[in-house]
Amino acid sequence: MDQQLINKVVQQVADELKIKPEEKAAEAGTQLCNSLGVTEFVGTSVGDTIGLVIASVDPMLVDVMKLGKYRSIGIIGGRTGAGPQIMAVDDAVKATNTEVISIELPRDTKGGAGHGDLIYIGAEDVSDARRAVEIALASLPKYFGDVYGSEAGHLEFQYSARASQCLEKAFGSPLGKAFGMTCAGPAAIGTVLADVAVKAANVDVVCYSSPGNGGTSFSNEVILIFTGDSGAVRQAVRAARAVGLKLLGALGSEPKSTTHPYI
Amino acid sequence: MDQQLINKVVQQVADELKIKPEEKAAEAGTQLCNSLGVTEFVGTSVGDTIGLVIASVDPMLVDVMKLGKYRSIGIIGGRTGAGPQIMAVDDAVKATNTEVISIELPRDTKGGAGHGDLIYIGAEDVSDARRAVEIALASLPKYFGDVYGSEAGHLEFQYSARASQCLEKAFGSPLGKAFGMTCAGPAAIGTVLADVAVKAANVDVVCYSSPGNGGTSFSNEVILIFTGDSGAVRQAVRAARAVGLKLLGALGSEPKSTTHPYI
Amino acid sequence: MDQQLINKVVQQVADELKIKPEEKAAEAGTQLCNSLGVTEFVGTSVGDTIGLVIASVDPMLVDVMKLGKYRSIGIIGGRTGAGPQIMAVDDAVKATNTEVISIELPRDTKGGAGHGDLIYIGAEDVSDARRAVEIALASLPKYFGDVYGSEAGHLEFQYSARASQCLEKAFGSPLGKAFGMTCAGPAAIGTVLADVAVKAANVDVVCYSSPGNGGTSFSNEVILIFTGDSGAVRQAVRAARAVGLKLLGALGSEPKSTTHPYI
Repeated sequence: MDQQLINKVVQQVADELKIKPEEKAAEAGTQLCNSLGVTEFVGTSVGDTIGLVIASVDPMLVDVMKLGKYRSIGIIGGRTGAGPQIMAVDDAVKATNTEVISIELPRDTKGGAGHGDLIYIGAEDVSDARRAVEIALASLPKYFGDVYGSEAGHLEFQYSARASQCLEKAFGSPLGKAFGMTCAGPAAIGTVLADVAVKAANVDVVCYSSPGNGGTSFSNEVILIFTGDSGAVRQAVRAARAVGLKLLGALGSEPKSTTHPYI
Repeated sequence: MDQQLINKVVQQVADELKIKPEEKAAEAGTQLCNSLGVTEFVGTSVGDTIGLVIASVDPMLVDVMKLGKYRSIGIIGGRTGAGPQIMAVDDAVKATNTEVISIELPRDTKGGAGHGDLIYIGAEDVSDARRAVEIALASLPKYFGDVYGSEAGHLEFQYSARASQCLEKAFGSPLGKAFGMTCAGPAAIGTVLADVAVKAANVDVVCYSSPGNGGTSFSNEVILIFTGDSGAVRQAVRAARAVGLKLLGALGSEPKSTTHPYI
Repeated sequence: MDQQLINKVVQQVADELKIKPEEKAAEAGTQLCNSLGVTEFVGTSVGDTIGLVIASVDPMLVDVMKLGKYRSIGIIGGRTGAGPQIMAVDDAVKATNTEVISIELPRDTKGGAGHGDLIYIGAEDVSDARRAVEIALASLPKYFGDVYGSEAGHLEFQYSARASQCLEKAFGSPLGKAFGMTCAGPAAIGTVLADVAVKAANVDVVCYSSPGNGGTSFSNEVILIFTGDSGAVRQAVRAARAVGLKLLGALGSEPKSTTHPYI
């Protein structure tokens, strides 16, 4: 991280001091390519996310990886997440003949307050797994849209009118119903957002996660998942977002969307 | 974090190269204000700590948040802690009609070796909760005084002549007796500090925490909590501090106090 | 971390803008010295690793530290690891009359995707413990040779023709047999490396670790440990390394060895 940051700083310093401008930093976003010469590689996307497939996992690994009946898998994993990747894989399993096998939440975000992610997607055929990974990578920038960051922490909001199998597996959110999520780090802000959300509209709590009481991997976040009528869920998310931007802004600079807000 | 760091660097580079000085960075410290337009907001303090209150937590959240009999809560949460915040809340509950409900320790410190914190304070009346949060925010800079940092790690020392309910709840330290704490990351330094402390004076071990054997959220710290005669406890803390500053100094630059040493 | 990074950046900016070069940063590597005036201090090495000894741990700490029969201990602990330190201590216990007491894995690497470490080594005599710590510190740069990093993540590979007690204790690797390890963060890359390794040669899986299914402290890594014929183990490691460098390279800049590759 340090070296890239240094390069970024050197660039910005050069720009600001107007001495020696260098080449522009690469645009963030999704890249699908196979020029790497590694058959497992599908592409990359925001959040230091990589998409991979294994056509047939070695039999020695099937049990330790808890793959169940699947041998062909798609893999989505990033340093920063996991909400956006879970949303993106939810889209992907809706659109393909695949199923989410497992969702793991490392404590990561590269020094930030949250999680990374490791998601295994199972398929009968590797082409289905690959297609699911491609869809997830392509959807990812959208779902980073309501992830807001500053030097003090982050906010995350997600909304789906109709939860599919990935949201059910990750959070116990009811299949086919609306899904809302509020999350903030430091966790104290997340607590207030949870209360604001449930007071703002007629929603039902699906699960509450906190640093030491389960649902997180000791991340510095309070996360609330809720369901209900889709209009109410969206209203609850938006109310929490308005408050979250003010509270996190009080701790540091104005929080910025990672891409473009979508909710 | 990156963007603020970049701005800081750009500023320092500009200063050192004497080309274009910009405005001074904001002074660290406690800020109590309500200009935010969010009723829950109380203020901020060092360690990216925010203080909040909820006058009446929504009934849907009372059980999942494990609030027991309380509906009015104060919230103290930071990215870097948790010793200073626990000490500050210990002062706050001594001085107000409030009680600590829970103390959670995320693995945080923004890429450092330690914890952040999320503390819920219960009160019959929200004005008591608010007062407790204000006291805790105001006490916080003091208790960051014996938190020393360098690029290699950190040291933390705490001392109280008389532990109150927050120290009892967090560490099992006996109520009304002296409290001492030594802590360092990387954890190896903390191990030596624990041994130095208990050999330096006649103290009793309350608890020992390490990365993989409990008491931490996988932070890279060894923490020793001890009690005894207040003079002995203070002597043990000071002996460990003297050794800690040398050992952490051997790994990198000279460790610096976050604010001003108080022990 | 920030201040050192800032200094590094200021230096690089000055270099690149050719305005005001300052003194060179200290060379990474192992330092053994006792000029610190702290009897417990042995030395430092890469990965912000410190080596320490306690001649006779205070009786109050022996049980909470789970030292068993030992009173004299050596301590190896770092911010970044733990593979290299485990390998280095494996060498150390082979060469001295000592035994590994415990290996703990904090979630660390200073904002990176992996672990730090805290290893206690027991000895009848403190001079044996000190010798073991010295050997471990001296071996450490070698075992950082196949740790590769970029701003996006890291790769780690280890190989031993004959595992000793530290590798057995850490991973359950059979004593006296060849030991191979593949590891990557983000974890998704580690999954593919595990599959590549077991397909590349006739090896047996010893253990598979992942962020949420055990073996890690919620690090963003998938780690595979395997054994077999020493030639096969080495071949499996090398095959995974070739793929890992490409995959991590797809997420960011070219991964660089921390020191010099040894496998």
